[in-house]
Amino acid sequence: MAKKKHHLNSIATEPENEDFYHQPGTIPGTIIVDANAPPPKIVLIDYSPTEAISKEIDTPEECIPYLDTESVSWVDVRGLGNEDILQRLGQVFELHPLVLEDIVNVPERPKVQDYEDQLVIIARMVMPKKKNHGFHSEQVSFVLGKHYLLTVQEEPKRDCFEPVRSRIFKNKGIICKNGSDYLAYALIDAIIDGFFPVLEKYGERIEDLEDEVISQPTPKTLRKIYKVKQELLQLRRAIWPQRNLLHTLIQDDNEIISNEVRVYLRDCYDHAVQVIDMVETYRELASGLMDVYLSAVSNRMNEIMKLLTVISAIFIPLTFIAGVYGMNFNTEKSPYNMPELNWYWGYPACLAVMAVIAALLLYIFWHKGWLENSSRLNR
Amino acid sequence: MAKKKHHLNSIATEPENEDFYHQPGTIPGTIIVDANAPPPKIVLIDYSPTEAISKEIDTPEECIPYLDTESVSWVDVRGLGNEDILQRLGQVFELHPLVLEDIVNVPERPKVQDYEDQLVIIARMVMPKKKNHGFHSEQVSFVLGKHYLLTVQEEPKRDCFEPVRSRIFKNKGIICKNGSDYLAYALIDAIIDGFFPVLEKYGERIEDLEDEVISQPTPKTLRKIYKVKQELLQLRRAIWPQRNLLHTLIQDDNEIISNEVRVYLRDCYDHAVQVIDMVETYRELASGLMDVYLSAVSNRMNEIMKLLTVISAIFIPLTFIAGVYGMNFNTEKSPYNMPELNWYWGYPACLAVMAVIAALLLYIFWHKGWLENSSRLNR
Amino acid sequence: MAKKKHHLNSIATEPENEDFYHQPGTIPGTIIVDANAPPPKIVLIDYSPTEAISKEIDTPEECIPYLDTESVSWVDVRGLGNEDILQRLGQVFELHPLVLEDIVNVPERPKVQDYEDQLVIIARMVMPKKKNHGFHSEQVSFVLGKHYLLTVQEEPKRDCFEPVRSRIFKNKGIICKNGSDYLAYALIDAIIDGFFPVLEKYGERIEDLEDEVISQPTPKTLRKIYKVKQELLQLRRAIWPQRNLLHTLIQDDNEIISNEVRVYLRDCYDHAVQVIDMVETYRELASGLMDVYLSAVSNRMNEIMKLLTVISAIFIPLTFIAGVYGMNFNTEKSPYNMPELNWYWGYPACLAVMAVIAALLLYIFWHKGWLENSSRLNR
Amino acid sequence: MAKKKHHLNSIATEPENEDFYHQPGTIPGTIIVDANAPPPKIVLIDYSPTEAISKEIDTPEECIPYLDTESVSWVDVRGLGNEDILQRLGQVFELHPLVLEDIVNVPERPKVQDYEDQLVIIARMVMPKKKNHGFHSEQVSFVLGKHYLLTVQEEPKRDCFEPVRSRIFKNKGIICKNGSDYLAYALIDAIIDGFFPVLEKYGERIEDLEDEVISQPTPKTLRKIYKVKQELLQLRRAIWPQRNLLHTLIQDDNEIISNEVRVYLRDCYDHAVQVIDMVETYRELASGLMDVYLSAVSNRMNEIMKLLTVISAIFIPLTFIAGVYGMNFNTEKSPYNMPELNWYWGYPACLAVMAVIAALLLYIFWHKGWLENSSRLNR
Amino acid sequence: MAKKKHHLNSIATEPENEDFYHQPGTIPGTIIVDANAPPPKIVLIDYSPTEAISKEIDTPEECIPYLDTESVSWVDVRGLGNEDILQRLGQVFELHPLVLEDIVNVPERPKVQDYEDQLVIIARMVMPKKKNHGFHSEQVSFVLGKHYLLTVQEEPKRDCFEPVRSRIFKNKGIICKNGSDYLAYALIDAIIDGFFPVLEKYGERIEDLEDEVISQPTPKTLRKIYKVKQELLQLRRAIWPQRNLLHTLIQDDNEIISNEVRVYLRDCYDHAVQVIDMVETYRELASGLMDVYLSAVSNRMNEIMKLLTVISAIFIPLTFIAGVYGMNFNTEKSPYNMPELNWYWGYPACLAVMAVIAALLLYIFWHKGWLENSSRLNR
Repeated sequence: MAKKKHHLNSIATEPENEDFYHQPGTIPGTIIVDANAPPPKIVLIDYSPTEAISKEIDTPEECIPYLDTESVSWVDVRGLGNEDILQRLGQVFELHPLVLEDIVNVPERPKVQDYEDQLVIIARMVMPKKKNHGFHSEQVSFVLGKHYLLTVQEEPKRDCFEPVRSRIFKNKGIICKNGSDYLAYALIDAIIDGFFPVLEKYGERIEDLEDEVISQPTPKTLRKIYKVKQELLQLRRAIWPQRNLLHTLIQDDNEIISNEVRVYLRDCYDHAVQVIDMVETYRELASGLMDVYLSAVSNRMNEIMKLLTVISAIFIPLTFIAGVYGMNFNTEKSPYNMPELNWYWGYPACLAVMAVIAALLLYIFWHKGWLENSSRLNR
Repeated sequence: MAKKKHHLNSIATEPENEDFYHQPGTIPGTIIVDANAPPPKIVLIDYSPTEAISKEIDTPEECIPYLDTESVSWVDVRGLGNEDILQRLGQVFELHPLVLEDIVNVPERPKVQDYEDQLVIIARMVMPKKKNHGFHSEQVSFVLGKHYLLTVQEEPKRDCFEPVRSRIFKNKGIICKNGSDYLAYALIDAIIDGFFPVLEKYGERIEDLEDEVISQPTPKTLRKIYKVKQELLQLRRAIWPQRNLLHTLIQDDNEIISNEVRVYLRDCYDHAVQVIDMVETYRELASGLMDVYLSAVSNRMNEIMKLLTVISAIFIPLTFIAGVYGMNFNTEKSPYNMPELNWYWGYPACLAVMAVIAALLLYIFWHKGWLENSSRLNR
Repeated sequence: MAKKKHHLNSIATEPENEDFYHQPGTIPGTIIVDANAPPPKIVLIDYSPTEAISKEIDTPEECIPYLDTESVSWVDVRGLGNEDILQRLGQVFELHPLVLEDIVNVPERPKVQDYEDQLVIIARMVMPKKKNHGFHSEQVSFVLGKHYLLTVQEEPKRDCFEPVRSRIFKNKGIICKNGSDYLAYALIDAIIDGFFPVLEKYGERIEDLEDEVISQPTPKTLRKIYKVKQELLQLRRAIWPQRNLLHTLIQDDNEIISNEVRVYLRDCYDHAVQVIDMVETYRELASGLMDVYLSAVSNRMNEIMKLLTVISAIFIPLTFIAGVYGMNFNTEKSPYNMPELNWYWGYPACLAVMAVIAALLLYIFWHKGWLENSSRLNR
Repeated sequence: MAKKKHHLNSIATEPENEDFYHQPGTIPGTIIVDANAPPPKIVLIDYSPTEAISKEIDTPEECIPYLDTESVSWVDVRGLGNEDILQRLGQVFELHPLVLEDIVNVPERPKVQDYEDQLVIIARMVMPKKKNHGFHSEQVSFVLGKHYLLTVQEEPKRDCFEPVRSRIFKNKGIICKNGSDYLAYALIDAIIDGFFPVLEKYGERIEDLEDEVISQPTPKTLRKIYKVKQELLQLRRAIWPQRNLLHTLIQDDNEIISNEVRVYLRDCYDHAVQVIDMVETYRELASGLMDVYLSAVSNRMNEIMKLLTVISAIFIPLTFIAGVYGMNFNTEKSPYNMPELNWYWGYPACLAVMAVIAALLLYIFWHKGWLENSSRLNR
Repeated sequence: MAKKKHHLNSIATEPENEDFYHQPGTIPGTIIVDANAPPPKIVLIDYSPTEAISKEIDTPEECIPYLDTESVSWVDVRGLGNEDILQRLGQVFELHPLVLEDIVNVPERPKVQDYEDQLVIIARMVMPKKKNHGFHSEQVSFVLGKHYLLTVQEEPKRDCFEPVRSRIFKNKGIICKNGSDYLAYALIDAIIDGFFPVLEKYGERIEDLEDEVISQPTPKTLRKIYKVKQELLQLRRAIWPQRNLLHTLIQDDNEIISNEVRVYLRDCYDHAVQVIDMVETYRELASGLMDVYLSAVSNRMNEIMKLLTVISAIFIPLTFIAGVYGMNFNTEKSPYNMPELNWYWGYPACLAVMAVIAALLLYIFWHKGWLENSSRLNR
């Protein structure tokens, strides 16, 4: 099994996601530590209906006393930068080598796998970027046991689990009265709901682009539409497997997840479907925008061509007339040779004819509606 | 479970639908009251085969005496603007916290859920706008019990249930002889049938656009087509899950819905399929229109270019001839220097040549059919 | 159940199909009689292996004596313009109110429904128009009982059942030896086979458009392609549900249809699949035509631009030269001021230079192949 | 059941396939003999593991003695032009009337049908045309009994069964050791494999078009692409139902086909899937070509426009300058009136200015890369 | 069964893949040796948990002593150029004739087939080309028995199995402790993982094209996009059937593959799905690029047209004015005949008017933003 840490995010815009992969054919279960990955920070939260403690620990082994107690132990590992710690983590939680590989060699496709007394869930969390467009995307792996939950995040800096932590310590809602399966649900729910703020930004960007594409289509607009389509494709790739994952969790009958939590997961599944619905709608809208863009560019071309045609159509005949009376036929040799030149009202008459022609053409073009259009061009 | 009240309608055109969502990770079952939502108005209709009463009530608790009687009690809540009343409503009807959240935190995706002795149905009602294009879209939630039906609407101003109310009080048809399940059917049927007038307007708009797109394609047309596509996408998102919802109602064997009503629901399901059929057809037509638009714009460009080419092709050679005889070669230095200038018929001959060339070119273009086309341009 | 008579045909070209619908929320089973619908004409055909009679009757009640005899009774109602007669028809045949509604409130989507001892089939018949393009589309409803078949057509003027009637009276084939189920099969088969002549016309129109689109693309062509696509969409909407209907008839085990007739229906199903195949193929071809049209229009634009460019490229330099020798520099002030004007061969040399330039440019354009193309433009 | 002989091939390019159909509503099982169809030629091949005979026979009845012997009898009927012989054939082989109709009223959609002790297979054979592009398409019907195989071909001139005949008479491979089911397999396999040479030609044509479309896009190219798409659509319509047919043959458990032959049919099925794979790939490539064509045409337009712009941009300013010095302001009236005309170096200076402007503009356009492009135009 | 060695790779860019096929209708199991195929080189690797040997052998018969021992024997045949050796190979491994045909007559579609005590897997290996774009594609066939694995490669020069060989000899991981099924897994895993480096190159090419298509769209870009689409189509055709193949291996219950290896294959299946995901994403991106290209070309056209229009709009009126004062009306005949020519400030005034007009037009165009755009044209 080759270890690979590659391209799922290749279209992501986060430079920190350096994608790489190992030589095909290496031993399955080998884990690859990215040299630039941040060192892991481990936080243990242990709670029961009556009390909750949180402490940061240095070595995975410090968790062991907590794991088999009745209280729920949540071991949250943030960062993948130390192979030794990750290997020891695997031993403490007795992970199958393939599981450890899936957890560490990000990105993996979201999925759920059942290993006897453990349920391994690979999920993907998105968070809107604060400063620019786009979103951060990060793998979160769950190992769910009877009395514990191990979560492994790629990145220590940010996650969307803070409200859950707060609910544990403030003992709000029913979280503390339930087991580790409810905790896993609460975190997955936070991940799925985290898609909504990201999507909302895309809704706004698409609305902005709608205006821009019709009134001011520039190559920059094109680039933006393409970007939005690209990022929505990435969101879609992140949410679809999570829907399937939730579907599997609801359907399967394994003992780790209780029926009560399944009711909650069903609700979470509905939200995932809603996210998919919105992603697909936005994708269709963005695709439609591309068509509109092409049409709008053609429209502008029409306007430009109309302007050129109007200018040419008016001046070319006039210039021709001026050219005619610029000819040097000898008026003295014959009365038929350009007698107009010697007329008393020749020049004014000539100018008048020109003015009439110009006015006539202008009227025709105005009647066709070309003049207004070209003036509307930049609106 | 995050509470969210968000983007399902983001492409709707109703400004009252302010989409927002809560912090991912908040407690499931939390309800969010939109500050701008209208305060709830509660109407209780209680009827039996022999009599029917209707009264507006202030507190949910006033319903309690009616709920367990044999007569059908329809509690219709319109408006979501008071958290306290909504919470008490939940207690009166013993709603699961997730159900209350689904009812209040609109928009939710249409679905049906079975909670032992209650059937919860989330539906979406559309009504054509009176003044402009587009439609109002509103969530209607049903909680169906053995002898009662709770409906919760977003908006007190309008619904499409008036004919049903009238049938109850005029004791028309079989509605009063049947239970709450038939009432629920009658309302859902009214919702599904409410799609038809909306769709009819889109049928007309598409027909108008067909004409406009071929005869007068402007950027405004483009915007209209895009708008229609967008709104049809929204209709599609509203009707598809309702079809599935009806399918579930027909298939599932729960005790709340009787077999006789199931026959009626099957008919209602057929109508939902018919709505989908029409939505998809209109979507295909609208997509086709976009292609036609692009082609029509290109066509007009051709016409413009033809006009420019005809004008240029005719005057450029003539102007050249005029230019030639405007040269100042000294006719006195040589008999070969522009002897035409001194010919007796020089000028008339020159004009005649020009006229012949112009006539010839005009004939060629007429023969190619360019002249008629450009005259047809604005039709 | 709202009664609606609406938009299924909104894209049909028949003005007689005035689409309308009732207020959503009206009583299910209400029938709506279109004021312009033709009054019903009822024909009763009763046949057994040995004899066949046909008579036109005025009231539905006249059928009653025939219905329960062993001979097959075919009651053919043509026209939906009399509510009283339709209601009495419902009583004679003991139709469920929903069935009567489906039969009368056209258009309904084709479907089959099983009502204990009756099989209700809603089908859609198409017939090519005689004078112009397009087709007539009409709903035919079947109510099939053990010894009788009720058919209801929208329109008395035309149907495609004449050959079946003739087979009954001439006692040709096995029709008279079989029951009402075989009669229903024979009529459905006639309906399905009726799609082939309609499709053939589309095949021809598409072939015509193929030529037109490449050699003479005009906005009219565009309109025609769009029209064909639209009508094929409508055909598709008519045939798909009939395929499903036939599939249901073959699969279901109800007692009204015998196994022998099921073999025939399987053949009819194959034909429906063949119709779908052809409709989809034509739709793909028509879509392809739209792309070809766009390309062809661009091609013509290229040709027009080439012509303009050739003309401009040839005459603009020549005109420039003429302009140069039209300058009025004073040759007397300096020997360097336009000495060409006083040369003996000045003018001929100038013309010669112009001719050489023109010839050279023509050669270049001919070499590029631009000249042939522009001459091929109208072919 | 209407007899129809219609449009499946309407997009075929073979004029001999005159499509027609009968009046909808005629008696099922009626066969329609096309007046132009070639008269049938019947060849009987009878073989056992030890010997093989072949003889041409005149009447179907001559087959009877061979049909029930243990040896395999292959009756190959080529041509559909004699109704009497076809009817007698139906009697000899005891065909169901619908089967005879399917065999004779070509084109029928490929399918397999099980009639107790006969298996009826309708297949479609394609052969590349020798002289021009495209392919011959012909229906081959199989009636497979325990000891005999009846095949009916549309056309006596060509088929792709020659190698099979040769294997029978040279007793090569295992064909003679097996029954009629193996013979049917061998012929179907020959039909499926016959798609490969046809497809190969399309592969080549698409490759040729790829070059043409980028370097030399003309309306002719467009027509070719459309043609290829059209013909691939036809191939697809021929192969898809044959895949389903093979799938049915493998899955069904009927006694006529032995398990050993089923292994061979599975291989044949794999080839059909491979054909579908290639057809779909070619279709995608051809669709892509249409896009490329459109882009390439736009590209050429750009090149043409650049050329026009370069020419105009260079000569228009020069012509203007020439025009200025062609003005007739009276130099004697004022020292400010065109003093340049009387300068000693006036004319050379003027020409020099013109040259500088031209050189400058040429440099700018060269720098923009427009000059190279327009020279690359015809490559 | 026709022997064919044909078009699966027709769109590949490797000239060595000369596609050809045999006459349809030839004997199934016939193998076709391509005259240019490299002669086979056979390497036998035999290993047990304790030791591993590797030797190159000349004749297939040399394998026989190893095949039935408990140790795992991997016979790796590279090259298909010798019919005799291939036939003897078939005898040594007791291959069904159809299997030998599938192995030798490349390309075959990837698939898995179960022959009692052998599992035959046809896979397709891809490797990035070192020097240019594109990839090498090669069929690898596996015949998996209880204690042996036969692999047949098309090409001796390269494969991606080297790391597996190295793991065997260095006794790394668990490969030597497991049977031939694990070896087959390891090789298939290496094949699937071999898609990632190929895909990564496409990710990079698409990113490069994104830049190019917006800033510098040339016909070359078009060709590149088309090429990428084409090659991705080919990758897709290679990976999809391998996903199905892995799915079959996981699901089927045959005895050759142990449950432990099935866990590993499930992981390998996940990677295949990930590959498909990436291929589809890249295909969508490449399709989007084509649209962007078309829009970008239109954009550039707009820029070119703007430039032409600006130049024409400025100089055409000026030239007209110059033309007017180049007319030869006789100023002596009338005071109204071009009195400007005799004004003292006539010429300067004329030039000034021209300058004002030019400045005004420039200002208008600058205001419309046309001037900046045309300067941005080549960026």
